[in-house]
Amino acid sequence: MKVKTFNTKVSVGIVGATGAVGQALIELLLRRQFPIKELLPLASAGSAGKKISVGGQSWTVKEARPEAFSSLDIVFFSAGGSVSRELVPAAVSAGCLVIDNSSVFRMDKSVPLVVPEVNSSAAWNHQGIIANPNCSTAISLMGLAPLHRAFGLRSFIASTYQAVSGSGTGGIVELQKQIKSGVMGESSEPNVYPYPIAYNVIPQVDVFQEGGYTKEEYKMLHESRKILGLPNLEVSTTCVRVPVMRAHSLSIHACFEKPLTVSGARNAINKFPGVIVRDDPANLEYPMPLDYSEVESCAVGRIRLDTVLPNGLAMWVVGDQIWKGAALNAIQIAEIFLKRSS
Amino acid sequence: MKVKTFNTKVSVGIVGATGAVGQALIELLLRRQFPIKELLPLASAGSAGKKISVGGQSWTVKEARPEAFSSLDIVFFSAGGSVSRELVPAAVSAGCLVIDNSSVFRMDKSVPLVVPEVNSSAAWNHQGIIANPNCSTAISLMGLAPLHRAFGLRSFIASTYQAVSGSGTGGIVELQKQIKSGVMGESSEPNVYPYPIAYNVIPQVDVFQEGGYTKEEYKMLHESRKILGLPNLEVSTTCVRVPVMRAHSLSIHACFEKPLTVSGARNAINKFPGVIVRDDPANLEYPMPLDYSEVESCAVGRIRLDTVLPNGLAMWVVGDQIWKGAALNAIQIAEIFLKRSS
Repeated sequence: MKVKTFNTKVSVGIVGATGAVGQALIELLLRRQFPIKELLPLASAGSAGKKISVGGQSWTVKEARPEAFSSLDIVFFSAGGSVSRELVPAAVSAGCLVIDNSSVFRMDKSVPLVVPEVNSSAAWNHQGIIANPNCSTAISLMGLAPLHRAFGLRSFIASTYQAVSGSGTGGIVELQKQIKSGVMGESSEPNVYPYPIAYNVIPQVDVFQEGGYTKEEYKMLHESRKILGLPNLEVSTTCVRVPVMRAHSLSIHACFEKPLTVSGARNAINKFPGVIVRDDPANLEYPMPLDYSEVESCAVGRIRLDTVLPNGLAMWVVGDQIWKGAALNAIQIAEIFLKRSS
Repeated sequence: MKVKTFNTKVSVGIVGATGAVGQALIELLLRRQFPIKELLPLASAGSAGKKISVGGQSWTVKEARPEAFSSLDIVFFSAGGSVSRELVPAAVSAGCLVIDNSSVFRMDKSVPLVVPEVNSSAAWNHQGIIANPNCSTAISLMGLAPLHRAFGLRSFIASTYQAVSGSGTGGIVELQKQIKSGVMGESSEPNVYPYPIAYNVIPQVDVFQEGGYTKEEYKMLHESRKILGLPNLEVSTTCVRVPVMRAHSLSIHACFEKPLTVSGARNAINKFPGVIVRDDPANLEYPMPLDYSEVESCAVGRIRLDTVLPNGLAMWVVGDQIWKGAALNAIQIAEIFLKRSS
């Protein structure tokens, strides 16, 4: 099957257009001057008819139904697993290229799972669907992939500091509400999270699975293996929600095939697109989530040798959960098919 | 030298009585019915004359000067390194048993560094000073020491989620101010921390040292080695400040000599004093900082096998920074000398 590329302007659909990632998709498509012929925001029947305004333009949300895809070239799905499971096949049948942000198709062997800076070539083997990885996975690999190329990644241990935006607009509103009620001396019951998130950290992201790990923690294992093409990569992570709005941070301790130095690691990361080294302890320079919200690049700091792991390196990686963790990465996947137009 | 024990009531001084840990020392001495003859709150000249009220009793703060120690049996120091460096020798000369919460004497070979549940016998070798460990070290060892006894600890990697109380009352006030200004739409400049802590995480606790690690991270290495009596223990940690008021959390991935199971690990921790297992994924049970503020026990959850480290185990440890991380542990050290009175 010849993979379709796009020479001219593209008709783009966004399923889940009213959510946090959906909004960011529209913002970033405009910001990156994606060659849009038509932009069609789609959502549940309840949101149909709503107006979405970004950058002085506005669109009316239509209901996400199979018929909606007929005029579209590319459809971004960001409305959760059940919507993707129901509607992605219809979009594929209509001849659309689907870039899906849910976890439904990520581990499907016929579906490429892509972080463009890491494995863009995999995207060309799609059969109508390309999966966008889990946010923590995408951000961690922006730090790990350049080191893997230079030194050969064997395993890593990560502890995450995940923003509430990972739970969509609901997570952001819940943190805001709990903070505001606290200041006002009122109380605000948890709803999105099982426990209060304001002034707290919750060592659970997504549901528990066998072995005591959460689904989020397994995603980091399985998706990293698939994206890096390392079926034997060992990964053990602890995923934790923190009261931060929209950038994820990760403390990563990784083990490599070859010996490495801090300056060698910095050089490898600096040569890689989409990630910068921000690492100057003498001047208290390191990336933090407040500085990497609504920033396209991920950033790595606190790079130092780890003494526990053989050829070990410790580092701190930060990236915008809504952008590189979701919407930006999805658009970068679509851009692969613009650049190399046949 | 015969180590002094206390058969009857004890005269107790608290240097740094107006600080967060100083206040907690008074609260906990009362709560634990420490046999107090006289309680003397001491602080800088600027705080002398202030009243401190706890549990219906009140005391007038006196200036911390060498003469103040003559009537005292035990003096708790919690006023920072420079005050300890200046005044601890005078308290020792006056015949007091000093329990010092600063880092000044911790690595001194003649000074025991004690977590009573872990190495209370070391306390008996003191020469007037016993050091109270760093808060993250004490709390992490409450999870690691029972596992070390059962399975032999070889190394561990930890990422911390440290509360602002670790910076004293100033840290707590700074987070409150930043949160309140944010809600009110105002701005509040950072003062205690180099960057805003509200809605942020800061991957730096204490100052940077050689190799890119912070002093806090080195404390966890060196103090763990000393307390556990394991000079070759390898420890690599990433210490991070989070917008939480007063309990620290740690994500720990540890490597042991002997193979272990999750149930074996749970049993070992449950048999250990001062720490409980709170680990039931099916019912979303795990410890969180909001639940372990003003609680004497530390708690461990998220216990599972780690696949990166040989005989590896991952877990999540939470404890009150002001209590087990400082004041409670200091009082428990003093209690060693009450229990075994000669």
